[in-house]
Amino acid sequence: MQKPIITLTTDFGYRDPLSGIVKGVILNINPDVNLVDITHGIGKYNVREAALMIGMSYRLFPSRTIHVVVADPGVGSERRPLMVITENHYFVGPDNGVFSVVYYENERCEVLHLTADHYFKRKQSATFHARDVFAPVAAWLSKGVLAPNFGTPITDYVKLPFPVPSMPTKTALEGQVIHVDHFGNAITNIRAEDLEMLRNVRPEGTLKVVMKGMQLAMKEYYSQAGDKELYALVNSMDRLELFVYRGNASRDFEIKVGDTLGVMFA
Amino acid sequence: MQKPIITLTTDFGYRDPLSGIVKGVILNINPDVNLVDITHGIGKYNVREAALMIGMSYRLFPSRTIHVVVADPGVGSERRPLMVITENHYFVGPDNGVFSVVYYENERCEVLHLTADHYFKRKQSATFHARDVFAPVAAWLSKGVLAPNFGTPITDYVKLPFPVPSMPTKTALEGQVIHVDHFGNAITNIRAEDLEMLRNVRPEGTLKVVMKGMQLAMKEYYSQAGDKELYALVNSMDRLELFVYRGNASRDFEIKVGDTLGVMFA
Amino acid sequence: MQKPIITLTTDFGYRDPLSGIVKGVILNINPDVNLVDITHGIGKYNVREAALMIGMSYRLFPSRTIHVVVADPGVGSERRPLMVITENHYFVGPDNGVFSVVYYENERCEVLHLTADHYFKRKQSATFHARDVFAPVAAWLSKGVLAPNFGTPITDYVKLPFPVPSMPTKTALEGQVIHVDHFGNAITNIRAEDLEMLRNVRPEGTLKVVMKGMQLAMKEYYSQAGDKELYALVNSMDRLELFVYRGNASRDFEIKVGDTLGVMFA
Repeated sequence: MQKPIITLTTDFGYRDPLSGIVKGVILNINPDVNLVDITHGIGKYNVREAALMIGMSYRLFPSRTIHVVVADPGVGSERRPLMVITENHYFVGPDNGVFSVVYYENERCEVLHLTADHYFKRKQSATFHARDVFAPVAAWLSKGVLAPNFGTPITDYVKLPFPVPSMPTKTALEGQVIHVDHFGNAITNIRAEDLEMLRNVRPEGTLKVVMKGMQLAMKEYYSQAGDKELYALVNSMDRLELFVYRGNASRDFEIKVGDTLGVMFA
Repeated sequence: MQKPIITLTTDFGYRDPLSGIVKGVILNINPDVNLVDITHGIGKYNVREAALMIGMSYRLFPSRTIHVVVADPGVGSERRPLMVITENHYFVGPDNGVFSVVYYENERCEVLHLTADHYFKRKQSATFHARDVFAPVAAWLSKGVLAPNFGTPITDYVKLPFPVPSMPTKTALEGQVIHVDHFGNAITNIRAEDLEMLRNVRPEGTLKVVMKGMQLAMKEYYSQAGDKELYALVNSMDRLELFVYRGNASRDFEIKVGDTLGVMFA
Repeated sequence: MQKPIITLTTDFGYRDPLSGIVKGVILNINPDVNLVDITHGIGKYNVREAALMIGMSYRLFPSRTIHVVVADPGVGSERRPLMVITENHYFVGPDNGVFSVVYYENERCEVLHLTADHYFKRKQSATFHARDVFAPVAAWLSKGVLAPNFGTPITDYVKLPFPVPSMPTKTALEGQVIHVDHFGNAITNIRAEDLEMLRNVRPEGTLKVVMKGMQLAMKEYYSQAGDKELYALVNSMDRLELFVYRGNASRDFEIKVGDTLGVMFA
């Protein structure tokens, strides 16, 4: 029997003991669990970013991993606590859209409103449900309590709209920057499969990216690019990404989340 | 037999390998230990903040957890290395006040001056006792060496004075900001029980918080508040906290540790 | 049988889920491994800093620990993936110099070019070899696959030149700042043994450090020094270090990596 894994993805930051406290609560209930930090560096209250970050990560973990995801500005209000069950994974967190990417990628997932409060901390605070609700539920789940015991199925959960690329003409894609990473790389909502579709229109053509009046060539890896110039590539998550080799695309070219870009034939 | 837990709370930051080195030393002595980071983001040399952070955290961990706490500007000097033993927990760190909150909350704790240097690294540096003294002692303790073997009981340990709220009149409390967290929330030394005492004076009354000429209403959770305004609530640690919903109270209203505030009837 | 340990030292930072993803991949292959973060705070693309940080850390870990080290601007190019085997440790990462300190300290290490791509992720991206190559190789190694199965021995690996102190006269040393740590302390390439050699020339003499026109006295530990002044000491890694007690030597005195300093008799 392998040790159950619980991952943590939060906007708690690294200065306060919040993530440590959550781990203490989990270990108090199930000392025999493997705790893995995905990140505690989600932008404060940034539900959309949390949704993207867990979306990039969960598939890489073993089957039956339990993912706790917390960016929760509505903590204490009527927003519901949830458990999401996909074919291979469990998720625990607030019903505010943090699981949007999980919903899009797992059409047949089950979503439970967590109502069985005997699995919560006895006295719950109105401001720290990660400690009082999500951590204990994840811990009891990891101990073998079956999912249906935690609550009742719902279908009206919050699913944030994520912009998808459009095709204004048969030979062009229009998309958006959806994340700027630690290296300043700008990750877009255009996927490798979108580019493939475009390429099929004119198999002999060469694609270029157009952004802020600039025309960017596509590369295969970072060090193929000259220094200080903006280029594009398909990244390791199969998304179109804008980068500066050994530089910071976001800072050097003032690129931010929401900026639009196009892809067309050169 | 459950795996022993050792937690780490330090001012080492996240750029250097210091916390990793401490873990290496512990695993070298006891590979069968569960290591948990509480935080390495304590303000540099900030003994008082370390005392508060471990004070907020230790109770959430299972009985017999060993907590290593290091903010240690006096490392290498005559300041003594300590082990603190409370009913349910062990603590290892310097005698500079990092355990002050633990002392206040555990009147009958035992404090040992760590003198048994055969449990230390053979050659100790004068600047990294976390590696050379605290980590090995915590590791040997986790392996089952009994506490009395590590040193001799003392009673003259350093206990920093922490400001407590005062009652200038029968219907008012005066307190201080003691911590600003990652979200910019200002945590005060006024506790839920202090507010309760005040409420008992005039049970039909409504409390307000006064700070920097502002009058703040009290809420129960963050999203109850309007955007961009300063409000107060009782937080998950049962302390009065000043916050801006989806904002940053400390930055937006220039609130810092040591600022005073009052609570009175509206 | 003790659990194998895999450590991670990267420039991934703490905002993105990259280090979490690497852990997921490892646990998918070997759920029975102990994962330890050394740091994810290496300066972006800073191969030299990564080499120093793992060089400071690896010896403190138990024998047979596997160290994954990633600062990899050339990912996807012809730069080779490596495994380095020393008497007591394993290392996995790119052939760009991140193991330079390991090579200097272990003359008889073995270096393998990782060629057995059936141990890699089936489809490797061109931009995230930590996930697709280094993590799976480390995981399979931790599971007991023998090192020679992963590739072929090479001797032409990249070994970055690190500046060594010089002795311009018989009574003086000249060195460089090689790292500025979280506390602003400036760590130099002058070692305790270099100072010892100098002291042997004139055993009754007192050493002073000269830098930017300043003459610095040597101390044994931080709190021996007066506030706000720059001093030197031999640090816990046996290197000459410049510091300001409770201050920030780098910021207060504009000291940076590459700055030169001298040591001579007072």
